[in-house]
Amino acid sequence: MDYTFANRIDGLKLSAIREIFKYAADPTVVSLSAGNPAPDAFPADALREISERLMKENPVLALQYGLTEGYAPLRESLKEYMKDDYNIGREFDDLIITSGAQQVMDLMTKALVNEGDEVVCESPSFIGSLNTFRSYGAKLLGVPMDEDGMNMEALEETLRTHDRIKFIYTIPTFQNPSGITMSLSKRKRMYELAKQYNVLILEDNPYGELRYRGETLPTIKSMDEDGIVVYAGSFSKVISPGMRVGWFVAPKAIAQKLIVCKQGSDVHTNMWAQVLCHEFMTKYDFKGHLQYLRQLYSKKAEYTMNLLRENLKGKIKFGEIDGGLFIWCTLPEDVDMPQFVLDAVKAKVCVVPGTAFLTDESEVSHDFRINFSTPTDEQLKKGIEILGTLAEKL
Amino acid sequence: MDYTFANRIDGLKLSAIREIFKYAADPTVVSLSAGNPAPDAFPADALREISERLMKENPVLALQYGLTEGYAPLRESLKEYMKDDYNIGREFDDLIITSGAQQVMDLMTKALVNEGDEVVCESPSFIGSLNTFRSYGAKLLGVPMDEDGMNMEALEETLRTHDRIKFIYTIPTFQNPSGITMSLSKRKRMYELAKQYNVLILEDNPYGELRYRGETLPTIKSMDEDGIVVYAGSFSKVISPGMRVGWFVAPKAIAQKLIVCKQGSDVHTNMWAQVLCHEFMTKYDFKGHLQYLRQLYSKKAEYTMNLLRENLKGKIKFGEIDGGLFIWCTLPEDVDMPQFVLDAVKAKVCVVPGTAFLTDESEVSHDFRINFSTPTDEQLKKGIEILGTLAEKL
Repeated sequence: MDYTFANRIDGLKLSAIREIFKYAADPTVVSLSAGNPAPDAFPADALREISERLMKENPVLALQYGLTEGYAPLRESLKEYMKDDYNIGREFDDLIITSGAQQVMDLMTKALVNEGDEVVCESPSFIGSLNTFRSYGAKLLGVPMDEDGMNMEALEETLRTHDRIKFIYTIPTFQNPSGITMSLSKRKRMYELAKQYNVLILEDNPYGELRYRGETLPTIKSMDEDGIVVYAGSFSKVISPGMRVGWFVAPKAIAQKLIVCKQGSDVHTNMWAQVLCHEFMTKYDFKGHLQYLRQLYSKKAEYTMNLLRENLKGKIKFGEIDGGLFIWCTLPEDVDMPQFVLDAVKAKVCVVPGTAFLTDESEVSHDFRINFSTPTDEQLKKGIEILGTLAEKL
Repeated sequence: MDYTFANRIDGLKLSAIREIFKYAADPTVVSLSAGNPAPDAFPADALREISERLMKENPVLALQYGLTEGYAPLRESLKEYMKDDYNIGREFDDLIITSGAQQVMDLMTKALVNEGDEVVCESPSFIGSLNTFRSYGAKLLGVPMDEDGMNMEALEETLRTHDRIKFIYTIPTFQNPSGITMSLSKRKRMYELAKQYNVLILEDNPYGELRYRGETLPTIKSMDEDGIVVYAGSFSKVISPGMRVGWFVAPKAIAQKLIVCKQGSDVHTNMWAQVLCHEFMTKYDFKGHLQYLRQLYSKKAEYTMNLLRENLKGKIKFGEIDGGLFIWCTLPEDVDMPQFVLDAVKAKVCVVPGTAFLTDESEVSHDFRINFSTPTDEQLKKGIEILGTLAEKL
């Protein structure tokens, strides 16, 4: 039989990153391509304790159907956390649990975007989100990045010249893949522009808790008095990604539509994971754990930056980082980046080519992304030394 | 701000059943409206043991990112189970883990159905699936049911007279809500018709393991030598729905597209739940547990049937059942079913109106669905006595 698929998924490919994971499964290859938390980043002892208690005292809670909106106590503890720590959540907002923040992108696009509608994205941006937008037939409008976030003139020009834009997708803090954090003035400007041009903002903040230095900036959602921002939060980087628990804060009218879509997508999120997240947040030292993660990754980041300074010696530029899990590296303009990445894999180190993150993958990129949270210190040393040897030859 | 949503979700409502759950949360209301497993149906001791071992010996496996396709050992044990017990899975097939079987419906529709394309459904059918099809702008073509499954003349007429049909959705065994099981000859006929008219079959089989009496019939997928059937399986009724683990078996070309869609939807399914299902299937007495469930529910079904016979006394007809979790009740033609269901809720017993399951909800229904797996024996007695009192007045 000749299968005919829906137009919306024409040309949609498996995420280059997750495909690269498969190369990275070769134990002789050093993978700097993932975005996984470090194995010692999980609060495993606490989660084991909670899990044992839950499965002993109330297994039916973990095993029975739950509500689509999420486990009520977790929704309450997250509302409190969002309000107290982020000033997020107004009278008009609701907070709903999702199966990872990825599902927020999925539900938002499904509920808001007709085929041919437009989504404004930072370019480069997180490939997982870009592919989700594409999978509903959205047209991506890439806006270039400055060192302090999306170029606001280009954003305004884009908003002015397009009439099917549904929302602006942004990762304002420690953006994946560029590592860039949007300045406060640009956050305010983006909010004003969205309001002026009557489009929503989808603010994705999986790395916000992982600031190693510098001052915390307010989220765009914290400025939202008009009900125009949807905030996506995630436990993937601060508790566990394997659990698949995220959430969104959105105006109730939007939340209602996303709940209907979630009901048809997976009914509800795994109950065990929701209970564990709730108990960890409320009965354990969640803030202390965040502090521990910042120390763990800050050390790893510094170690990696030193290796890059020693090995790449000006041949490859790389950004300084104040947080997050990624370092964005830029090759000289005369170097063929895809060839460099291929040479690197052959030399047994795996990085992600910058093209993977472009809204238009046919554009030229001189960048690649490395991750420092997943590899061990030994692997980081070995991998970056290989990159250094390749850089020497440039 | 005035929010504008995508056309595909126009008119999509929250599942009437899940809305009714909220009434049912009133402790004075007897709920016969759910579809939850009985609280004592969970293999809680075994799952507790496996969970404790996992969280002690290999917490990182439960907590770290996994592959979109699913946890490899679970895929293998399910492939074996499907092959050995169902003769499902050919060279051209693959088996992929999903976040409940609901996600199979979601991924299939997303990958195959353009807005305005058609999906053939039994009418009545499972509202969760119908709403998922609707949520991608599919047009539902309802085919009436005979006592031995979909009417094949009507099915052929539908296939002959429509040219945008992508697949036939069927629950051939212990259908939800009607309880009907499709005869072997109709299964063969449906397969032949699908082949002839070049459409796929989506076979949903969440209740197949719950046969209390009579002979097991082969699934339609077991006849699939042409790569035209996608089979959806679920652990929700035989291990736990709160875990959200299901799977599909599909020709590889289709599976590949569904994997891409799943990547954008939730990246992968909760890892802890996948490991628990695998270990329970391979290291515990899974078959013995299925046997236990059949005994548990068979007893409950018989108890319920006796109550119906005693109380409804010919005023309301109801189907005999050989398996599954639901009994389909039919009011006399001159009775206003929605009013009867409303009267029932007021009298403190909650059932699901048949209209909820129609492909065209504006059609008239004289039916309602009751579930016997969730309520206790006492609740069943009380609830059905109330229905009896209402029936008396008809």
